[in-house]
Amino acid sequence: MNFKIKNLEIETGARIAMLNEESANIIGAHPGDRLEIKLKGRTSTAILNIANFIKNSTLGLTRELTEELNAKDGDECDIDLAKQPNSLIAIKEKLNGRRLDYKQVYSIIKDAVDGRLEKDELTAFVVALHSFGINLEEAAYISEAMVETGEKLNLKKKRIFDKHSIGGVPGDKTTLLVVPIVAAAGLTIPKTSSRAITSAAGTADRAEVLMPVNLDARELEKIVNKTNGCIAWDGAVHLAPADDIFIKIEYPFSIDPLLLPSIMSKKKAVGATEMVLDVPTGETVKVRNKTEAELLIKDFMELGSKLGIHVNGAITFGEQPIGHAIGAALEAREALATIMRKNVEEDLLDKATSIAGILLEMAGKSDGKRLAKEIFNKGLAEKKLREIIEEQGGNAKIMPEDIEIGSYSESLVAEREGRLMKFDNSVLAYAARIAGAPSNKKAGILINKKLGENVAEGETLLTIYSDIPAKAKEAMNYIVRNDGIIVAKGNNMLIKKIIEEKVKPSRFIFER
Amino acid sequence: MNFKIKNLEIETGARIAMLNEESANIIGAHPGDRLEIKLKGRTSTAILNIANFIKNSTLGLTRELTEELNAKDGDECDIDLAKQPNSLIAIKEKLNGRRLDYKQVYSIIKDAVDGRLEKDELTAFVVALHSFGINLEEAAYISEAMVETGEKLNLKKKRIFDKHSIGGVPGDKTTLLVVPIVAAAGLTIPKTSSRAITSAAGTADRAEVLMPVNLDARELEKIVNKTNGCIAWDGAVHLAPADDIFIKIEYPFSIDPLLLPSIMSKKKAVGATEMVLDVPTGETVKVRNKTEAELLIKDFMELGSKLGIHVNGAITFGEQPIGHAIGAALEAREALATIMRKNVEEDLLDKATSIAGILLEMAGKSDGKRLAKEIFNKGLAEKKLREIIEEQGGNAKIMPEDIEIGSYSESLVAEREGRLMKFDNSVLAYAARIAGAPSNKKAGILINKKLGENVAEGETLLTIYSDIPAKAKEAMNYIVRNDGIIVAKGNNMLIKKIIEEKVKPSRFIFER
Repeated sequence: MNFKIKNLEIETGARIAMLNEESANIIGAHPGDRLEIKLKGRTSTAILNIANFIKNSTLGLTRELTEELNAKDGDECDIDLAKQPNSLIAIKEKLNGRRLDYKQVYSIIKDAVDGRLEKDELTAFVVALHSFGINLEEAAYISEAMVETGEKLNLKKKRIFDKHSIGGVPGDKTTLLVVPIVAAAGLTIPKTSSRAITSAAGTADRAEVLMPVNLDARELEKIVNKTNGCIAWDGAVHLAPADDIFIKIEYPFSIDPLLLPSIMSKKKAVGATEMVLDVPTGETVKVRNKTEAELLIKDFMELGSKLGIHVNGAITFGEQPIGHAIGAALEAREALATIMRKNVEEDLLDKATSIAGILLEMAGKSDGKRLAKEIFNKGLAEKKLREIIEEQGGNAKIMPEDIEIGSYSESLVAEREGRLMKFDNSVLAYAARIAGAPSNKKAGILINKKLGENVAEGETLLTIYSDIPAKAKEAMNYIVRNDGIIVAKGNNMLIKKIIEEKVKPSRFIFER
Repeated sequence: MNFKIKNLEIETGARIAMLNEESANIIGAHPGDRLEIKLKGRTSTAILNIANFIKNSTLGLTRELTEELNAKDGDECDIDLAKQPNSLIAIKEKLNGRRLDYKQVYSIIKDAVDGRLEKDELTAFVVALHSFGINLEEAAYISEAMVETGEKLNLKKKRIFDKHSIGGVPGDKTTLLVVPIVAAAGLTIPKTSSRAITSAAGTADRAEVLMPVNLDARELEKIVNKTNGCIAWDGAVHLAPADDIFIKIEYPFSIDPLLLPSIMSKKKAVGATEMVLDVPTGETVKVRNKTEAELLIKDFMELGSKLGIHVNGAITFGEQPIGHAIGAALEAREALATIMRKNVEEDLLDKATSIAGILLEMAGKSDGKRLAKEIFNKGLAEKKLREIIEEQGGNAKIMPEDIEIGSYSESLVAEREGRLMKFDNSVLAYAARIAGAPSNKKAGILINKKLGENVAEGETLLTIYSDIPAKAKEAMNYIVRNDGIIVAKGNNMLIKKIIEEKVKPSRFIFER
């Protein structure tokens, strides 16, 4: 049946096409049915809604679909009821608890990327993966299918290095130091990072304070060929675009069965041959103890070996923020001051040189951490960072004080003397978000004391920065109410009273 | 924020509200967010879409939502971002593999019925139930919550009888005989049935050929108080409306974790204290052997005992259609001719009196099947059926020949002599649907031969009825191509060659 297209200027976040009741009856379609739309030799699918303000023989399209089809009002298209996609049959197989082969996995990932699967169908797939579990073969198939359905870097190097942190510790600006150190040592490290999902800032957000990070694959290749490294936003590179789709499905349900394949597919897509996985471990981050961390690293190693990526792991201390700054601008300031050897955050430097050291040793150098420190001390890391900033289009001469932070601040002072006993990382991250992070890069938190430090009565414990005073106050209330920072004296042995069993909603998701 | 309502005359099958971009920004909402709409003291939730044809300070609503809110164009409403519903937290618990308590289950069922959960959220719940499984406690909680969120019959009888078939055999018009037999014996049997989901006709469809079946709870009470029985469509009674919602979620994925609770909730809602579960068993129906059937009946018994319903089971022969007719009108004709003792289908009569007999014995009578036959032979069953038809508003004097069937027919003749060896029930049911069933009640199939009967070359095996010749031909092709009926001679031992492993999509779903 031929229909005339009309752009309805509606945005739904889904692939919706609309017919009036009469037209729908003619093709025998009901609301919710899948339609096949043929236009100028291209075929797309969409979900039918009924709208009687639409004229006969007219197909109304959402703005997203109009753009995708490159359609103009009045264009003639052919529509028909679509068959059930093969990927849906594969999803039903998984719902039967069966293992999927590569062809089945590819059909699902491809249809997800091309928008041929509905949100509830993707949900069924993700929940089935979560509850039945995936084995190593399937994880590898998913990774490979995610690589195949996205952009790839072609760097023509024999060995390519990468790092990944599963996140969870606020203020973790380690990558901003690791990349320049490793690149200065002559290794190739095309680092792409995500933006914040549940945190106050992702590495892409932090880096964006210093330089543009929205670069495409071809631009990245040029930069890395010149400087050995880069720090870019993975979203703009379109590596494994399936991940963006699946994370939106997983996140509201606090499940992440696709975590490993998603991460590893992005590493594979940049051509990584060696990587180090940083697993911050602590009571208030995602991975709570060393045993869990070791199991997770082992899973990555196994999947890596299937994909031809050599994985080493680093279990790192995750009981408190890294350095003192939380929030993109404050963190970029701190990283810059440290790499300039102006105002060095010792824990940040130790973490960065440890991780860089592992990569250097994977490249065959001996005593990696010492070498990393040497590169840092000689100013070669700073020089390399400024080179990368220049190549990515930023101001290579940027100084910490050039970076603007929130115009309003609110401080928390100690009510009594004692020692800093505990941070709740998830509370601090959420408070920074209340203050405006990550969309407002200038919002964040500066902590004044770290674990074990003595605190005098009236001393400042932390300061919240925001452009909106009410938000800073709200963030502060949140920290106080939820024990984001605890100062205690001596023998208080009761950690928490449990009055009624209640589910605490998870505030974290692994970075990917 | 105050907004003016505008009915957009769009039907989406979901709870959609639309704002333009500017309005959405003002309340800080993004496409896909959940909005809380307050109008005339009532609060509803809806999912936000963006549509820039909508004016500032205007909230566009789908037709469904406008009706539900009883809103008029220009009504002032207050909108806000909605909080995550408690039911979603319960769904996440289930996704963690935990058992749910009654409060949690109730929150999910209630929010499903009130439209506060999105399709993908319901999908996550259903898939989690399917893959993690539900235990007896949870099944009882779900049943009870489904009862609480729907209509209930209040018949003021000490004992109320019911029957249920899980379906799968085409032509199963047993209920049309069981209800009048049991009611004629003085037992109370307020039978509500579903329409066809994947079959050629549901009991409600068959009964509707003889009498109106869209009756509400109060009408049903009146009818049952007068005649002891009824045969109504469960959808109109609004017993356990949650089932209608969940079946739409389950069906596309061919899973049905809510099967038992859904069925039992409808029995509980009519006040049933005793019921018999009919499980047709055979190679081409849902339950393939006696072991499976026994396990299923045991599950029903256990759930029944939690809900105060005494369950007995009947494993019945399911290798071929019941009687000779498939399709609502043809089946109603056949049931009527049988109950009138004019043209008795012996297998139908045997099945009906067996099941009625079990119910009579549950009521304390001895030799139930003999008693059932006696009631039938004396014409008391026919008399009772006509009473029920009269009370439900049908023509009590209806004769088989008054019932119209498809105007066009297409017959299949035997290509060679032999014996009727096999039916494929799922193929026959699907063919009847191709011919127009269940929406066209006149469409269907009359089989001429049953299992084991001798067939001469050129003899008619079956006849398809339809109002559309092309549909009858297509249905016939489908039967021939898919071995819907097999005539063979002697020693053909190869049943099927398997060339390539392929998933055969399930064509069945349990009736509920």
